[in-house]
Amino acid sequence: MVSYNGTFDSIVLNLSQGNKDELREIFGEIHPYDQAQILMLLSKENRRLLAEILTDEEMAEIIQEIEIEQQKLIIDELGIERYSKIIVEMPSDDAADLLGDLDEERLNQVLNLMDDKEEADLRELMEHPENTAGGLMTTEYIVLPEYFTADESIKKLRKIAPDAETVYYLYVVDEDGRLKGVLSLRDLIIASPETKIYDIMYERVVSVPIDMDQEEVANLIDRYDFLAVPVVDKHQVLVGIITVDDAMDVLAEEASEDMAKLGGIGGGEAGILDINVNAFDAAKKRIPWLALLLCIGIFSGNIIAQFEDTLEAVVVLSFFIPVIAGMAGNTGTQSLAVVIRGLATGQFAGKDTLRLIKREAGVGLIIATTNGILISFIAAVWQKNIVLGFVIGLALWITLFVATLAGTIVPLIIAKLKIDPAVASGPFITTINDILGLTIYFTVATMLMGYLV
Amino acid sequence: MVSYNGTFDSIVLNLSQGNKDELREIFGEIHPYDQAQILMLLSKENRRLLAEILTDEEMAEIIQEIEIEQQKLIIDELGIERYSKIIVEMPSDDAADLLGDLDEERLNQVLNLMDDKEEADLRELMEHPENTAGGLMTTEYIVLPEYFTADESIKKLRKIAPDAETVYYLYVVDEDGRLKGVLSLRDLIIASPETKIYDIMYERVVSVPIDMDQEEVANLIDRYDFLAVPVVDKHQVLVGIITVDDAMDVLAEEASEDMAKLGGIGGGEAGILDINVNAFDAAKKRIPWLALLLCIGIFSGNIIAQFEDTLEAVVVLSFFIPVIAGMAGNTGTQSLAVVIRGLATGQFAGKDTLRLIKREAGVGLIIATTNGILISFIAAVWQKNIVLGFVIGLALWITLFVATLAGTIVPLIIAKLKIDPAVASGPFITTINDILGLTIYFTVATMLMGYLV
Repeated sequence: MVSYNGTFDSIVLNLSQGNKDELREIFGEIHPYDQAQILMLLSKENRRLLAEILTDEEMAEIIQEIEIEQQKLIIDELGIERYSKIIVEMPSDDAADLLGDLDEERLNQVLNLMDDKEEADLRELMEHPENTAGGLMTTEYIVLPEYFTADESIKKLRKIAPDAETVYYLYVVDEDGRLKGVLSLRDLIIASPETKIYDIMYERVVSVPIDMDQEEVANLIDRYDFLAVPVVDKHQVLVGIITVDDAMDVLAEEASEDMAKLGGIGGGEAGILDINVNAFDAAKKRIPWLALLLCIGIFSGNIIAQFEDTLEAVVVLSFFIPVIAGMAGNTGTQSLAVVIRGLATGQFAGKDTLRLIKREAGVGLIIATTNGILISFIAAVWQKNIVLGFVIGLALWITLFVATLAGTIVPLIIAKLKIDPAVASGPFITTINDILGLTIYFTVATMLMGYLV
Repeated sequence: MVSYNGTFDSIVLNLSQGNKDELREIFGEIHPYDQAQILMLLSKENRRLLAEILTDEEMAEIIQEIEIEQQKLIIDELGIERYSKIIVEMPSDDAADLLGDLDEERLNQVLNLMDDKEEADLRELMEHPENTAGGLMTTEYIVLPEYFTADESIKKLRKIAPDAETVYYLYVVDEDGRLKGVLSLRDLIIASPETKIYDIMYERVVSVPIDMDQEEVANLIDRYDFLAVPVVDKHQVLVGIITVDDAMDVLAEEASEDMAKLGGIGGGEAGILDINVNAFDAAKKRIPWLALLLCIGIFSGNIIAQFEDTLEAVVVLSFFIPVIAGMAGNTGTQSLAVVIRGLATGQFAGKDTLRLIKREAGVGLIIATTNGILISFIAAVWQKNIVLGFVIGLALWITLFVATLAGTIVPLIIAKLKIDPAVASGPFITTINDILGLTIYFTVATMLMGYLV
């Protein structure tokens, strides 16, 4: 990685001496992500000085790299007019995302300062649900006429490239704006200068509908190794493109959400795993979930209470409560992880669901049998009681088989019903399986009570 | 998405009629990923016919998209000579990955058929550990002399583009091969034709060392929105590049590994969440882990056994075993999810670790207090026993605080010690916290025994 040793100090020095040209030169060599880091490290006064030296375009590149909270600070520092000019220079998808996080009043102030077309474009982009292709796309793509030659196209690119989000994929549309073809800049470069676009473009374009879920879009871009994918409305009209950098962000975001789901933190809300949130806010998001699980846990206790007589007669049964409940939770969480990940990577087609259930049933059977035999043996030796060993082994055998299936089927049903998948989180499955496990355990023990006492 | 309705049938028809030109035209319009799907759906005989019609370059594009098991099938069908020729046409990073999965005998057969330079290149690539920048990089990048003009560069690109993995980033090196600058094809297109490369190239190049962990590389590409990043050896000599599509694959792979970790399946081995593995193999990977947890679970039982007298005197204490153990596991898993995700996204700098521990201590305190009060109340009302409510509440209060910290600190220590992070998996933390919870619970109950009976 690049090292910026000394750069920061030299920027501060040049700021104090007002060497604008030198500053522009030093700063211009730094990647926008790092420029943003440096900008936020500066004092308020120095930040103001630097912002004055930079153009709106340069500031736009930097602002994109800053967290929304810090952006609000920057709005206040720069003033709403400068901010509005900077927003206009940003890729439209990023601009819409940022504006979507502003409060109503600031948003209107910023938009009112733009010309009508820019305002209308951004308002329209902001209307698409955030988690869909529409919410992710940018409208700054390049369309070429199919009758252009490669050489004419490159000349045109030279003019319009600075405004486009990517110049590496170029699109061809018919008179109604419907997507007709795609070619890459690579194809264009390789082609001899007089070749016509319609001779080198691909006509079987892979595109995504505007309402496609963002995770599906990201998986598609990943699968096809695309740098961008075009977005079309229901009439196949090209309305935007989604670039690979945004697809990567989606993959990372969805991975965090899946972890939050499995970990049972607020059900997969983005940012919930953020280590920068303060303790109070972090606790506030976890507590409702824990309180719910506590109540379900009391329900498990109630099951044991139902079998109080059995337990009073054979206190040793209580020794195995943690292992029965725990193992039910463990095997269920394993199956759940497979299902969540499968759903996330779009591995499931219709018939795969049934195949997965059958597979997990098989897994459950093998796991139940091996662990059932193991615990029988341990229990029998530990408590010097072969009958007890048999009871515990049988209970665990049934429990593990049922718990593995529950860990597979419950989240699949929940996903099918399109209920908030948070409900299928790790601790939820664990707690459900606790209850199943204890019920099975005490039922088996009570039925075989005669042999135990 | 593109629909291939009818395409498959028309390919089969044209194969049976031997219409080579038509086949090439239909097939050429299809994306390699889909070509691969179609190829694998064909009968063995039709697959052989189609493979004969396609060039080595075309086959190379297709083969990349096929799973390794099916590739081995293809080697047998095509014969080792054709396969060797195809491998040479593949991007060197993909070729090295594939060859790395072959058995020694097949590998040597394939390599012996190549010329010496190709063989040496691939053997060298295969030597880098799979999970590092070296294992991920391709050696097919484009280097331009800094004294070239934009126009000369584009002309050169036209010639060499077909062999490079990406033409969108171009690199400049000094006489010793050290990385000196980078420019994008976009910069090149925008520049006026007579501009020299050294006037438009960026000299502060972000590069990665050859031994950098692949997850760090992927996070860096994601953070900077790069299409590729150059890889350098310890002398800053350019040795390869890593492209964004490979970075995306890494992110997806690492997300699966993290899920497997949290779910406690074989500790994050890649592919372990694959729904296509058969039941026996899936069970084989989960059983050792479950068996270990079973033994630890018996240890929990042993703790209860230590308190047999307490339990015989107050059987009602057993009703709360599931909720105490369960809640300890739940809060620990929540903290663990935060830590695993934080490690994966590289959020942790040195002092962040301490800050996170403090934050989680705060979270633990809040969670413990609210849930402690809640369960006190429920237990007191349910069992009509205020003292019991107090004992349960106090036990849960201590348990949740300790369990939250354990869920944070244990995986951090394990990561620090560079022990296999599998050990810090969800069920492991859950089980550890079960033991902690039960010990605390029965200790508190035994100490306050006098007030309970």
